[in-house]
Amino acid sequence: MAQTNLPPGLARGIADALYRAAGSPELRIRLWTGDEVGAAPSVSAGTLVVGGPGALARLVLDPELELGDLFVSEEIDVEGDLDRFLAALLRPKPRVGVSHFVPDGLRAFVLDTGLRRSRENARHHYDVGNDFYACWLDAGMTYTCAYFPHPEASLEEAQIAKMDHVCRKLGLRPGDEVVEAGCGWGGLALHMARHYGVRVRACNVAEEQVAFARERAEKEGLADRVEFLQEDYRNLHGQYDAFASVGMLEHVGTAHYAELGKMIDRCLRPDGRGLLHTIGRSRPQLLNRWMRTRVFPNAHPPTLKEMMDVLEPSDLAVLDVENLRLHYRLTAWHWLRRFEREWDRIEALVGREVARTWRFYLAGTTASFETATVQLFQVCFARAGNDHIPWNRDHLATGDPPLFADEALVGTAWETPGGLRGAR
Amino acid sequence: MAQTNLPPGLARGIADALYRAAGSPELRIRLWTGDEVGAAPSVSAGTLVVGGPGALARLVLDPELELGDLFVSEEIDVEGDLDRFLAALLRPKPRVGVSHFVPDGLRAFVLDTGLRRSRENARHHYDVGNDFYACWLDAGMTYTCAYFPHPEASLEEAQIAKMDHVCRKLGLRPGDEVVEAGCGWGGLALHMARHYGVRVRACNVAEEQVAFARERAEKEGLADRVEFLQEDYRNLHGQYDAFASVGMLEHVGTAHYAELGKMIDRCLRPDGRGLLHTIGRSRPQLLNRWMRTRVFPNAHPPTLKEMMDVLEPSDLAVLDVENLRLHYRLTAWHWLRRFEREWDRIEALVGREVARTWRFYLAGTTASFETATVQLFQVCFARAGNDHIPWNRDHLATGDPPLFADEALVGTAWETPGGLRGAR
Repeated sequence: MAQTNLPPGLARGIADALYRAAGSPELRIRLWTGDEVGAAPSVSAGTLVVGGPGALARLVLDPELELGDLFVSEEIDVEGDLDRFLAALLRPKPRVGVSHFVPDGLRAFVLDTGLRRSRENARHHYDVGNDFYACWLDAGMTYTCAYFPHPEASLEEAQIAKMDHVCRKLGLRPGDEVVEAGCGWGGLALHMARHYGVRVRACNVAEEQVAFARERAEKEGLADRVEFLQEDYRNLHGQYDAFASVGMLEHVGTAHYAELGKMIDRCLRPDGRGLLHTIGRSRPQLLNRWMRTRVFPNAHPPTLKEMMDVLEPSDLAVLDVENLRLHYRLTAWHWLRRFEREWDRIEALVGREVARTWRFYLAGTTASFETATVQLFQVCFARAGNDHIPWNRDHLATGDPPLFADEALVGTAWETPGGLRGAR
Repeated sequence: MAQTNLPPGLARGIADALYRAAGSPELRIRLWTGDEVGAAPSVSAGTLVVGGPGALARLVLDPELELGDLFVSEEIDVEGDLDRFLAALLRPKPRVGVSHFVPDGLRAFVLDTGLRRSRENARHHYDVGNDFYACWLDAGMTYTCAYFPHPEASLEEAQIAKMDHVCRKLGLRPGDEVVEAGCGWGGLALHMARHYGVRVRACNVAEEQVAFARERAEKEGLADRVEFLQEDYRNLHGQYDAFASVGMLEHVGTAHYAELGKMIDRCLRPDGRGLLHTIGRSRPQLLNRWMRTRVFPNAHPPTLKEMMDVLEPSDLAVLDVENLRLHYRLTAWHWLRRFEREWDRIEALVGREVARTWRFYLAGTTASFETATVQLFQVCFARAGNDHIPWNRDHLATGDPPLFADEALVGTAWETPGGLRGAR
């Protein structure tokens, strides 16, 4: 579709309609003609630059998917911070969804005529390797939400604080045996063994990550205490004092939650504790279509209600839930800024298209946590009647060893038959 | 049914079958004949004393209801600590439920013949007044789970600590306006106004409790800052910085959860926080039939999954969940021991039958938390995109004012367009 096909006045009208259908967000749209529509420059979070009428048509027809695709193919671009631009777009407001703006028949007709490019190579960015992630993750290669003791903490500090936070919530003690489902590059498992004196069996289906984790364990002299298995969580066996899964549940799929619960039920000792850390939702919703087709096939951030389908069937009781949405907002923002700083190296490593896909995805993630279309839940649990749990949560703040309830009650009036009767 | 109707050997056989059907718990049964069955005395938590064949028959036919009824009517009794006896009975074990032991036809036949006494006066204990509760609650008249900083804290200390815990979770500041749904005798509302400098509007449907609370407000010089309404939660209006409900949700009924959510949605300011505190379950189950017919008509302790039906429809995001099961175990145990110490005064005040009903209920509550048939959830929430929430939970342990995320981020690199780009 050549630019001359669309009279300039019409293009501007379409852009204006698109802008209004999106809820008149605080951003601007500039067309290939030089025409601009949108918010006043003083309040605009950024400008969407549309390269031609084909891009404009595709945006109108399927904005959820095309915004990302057109950014990657450079048929559109964004002036200003990409994450701030996307947050302005996502920020909740009363609006008519753009999706409802276009009759389905028209949409189908246009898509069937091949206006949209083939995307068969959509998943190639999963082939990007460890070197790519090392460009923009923290030194410990932790690809999950960090825990910032204060907002000015560095990403490195915050990832270490997150691992300590998890270990404290689990009440780890020297000699404990821990099982981890979905271990990434092994950072948490190694941290547990190094700083908490525990033995860890950790699994991950990704070959390259497991190889990396094993190498780290060898280098750090922890190979006798941390075992990395290239294995699905369903194939974990044995008995453990603690179960941890950080950033895997998003990929499990609600249909498999009961299986995960059974695995935990099978592997957790009666006095064990568990932790599930996952991106979630405040209400049920599918992942944005661009994200779930181009970046994370079949991923689903569950609501807390959906998460209970892992725990309730096995009578595992929730002990503690913490929502770390704003910590993920900062984490993703650090990743994005590092990514942008390392742009030249990254582009040389993976090519321009993959690099633009990831930049868009990282900016979108930052914006999603900022605008709260997603949340981050850290859920701690134990068997319903397990008293070997921390008496309260003070140790999370102080860093002292936890006071376990079953031990705290020994020798108190509670333990004495008839205790307190007549006393006080 | 006279005692001579049942040959002693048969009575013993029935008692033994009853004991085994209950899962052979660590307790004993002694019959009116002097016969005993059950666990070895060395491991027994107490002895159920059955006064006659009618009581034995009713226990076999409908143990869930009759255990409490027969205890109240003194046709059975328990030797040993009542709460420990009930905990031994409730403790989970592989077993065939007694309910499945008796054919439904037989049960219906016997019940229809009028073997069971009429219980039309079942609810008379709701008429017991404030003086009754003052005999065994803490000095502040708090009839919900306390928070024990350590297990040896007194009930008075723990109830005050609970109120502070709630206020800190809500991040109350001087000048805030708070709405409370279900305020009991007003203890929490008055504590908030006195120690946190806030204004409170609190409601309760119980006339006598509201009168008591208003009188307290007058006496303590807080009547200009705390308003007590005799009103249903659905009739609350206005706009508030915080919503609190401690121990009401058990009585709301799952069918009304969406209505409660709407009320919260209507009354909570965009930057407000809320807290729901309720007895709950690790998996869905109706309340024990004796409890729900004799003590708390239509009460239902929800699972966390069920609780989400209050929050998700209004896009209220969970920020924090804390399970205080063991704190309620201690709370109920304190209540029971005080109740037993004040027995003579209580019996004189409300009569023997009401007193026995309450003693059984308090012992059952203690046992239920000990054996984890129930849990206690404190759920803190806010609108999904509200950034005026505590940055982390450290202030709960330290007692320092909370660091609010929206304020903590001001002036950081996050707030600067392009912030951190090129830095670090």
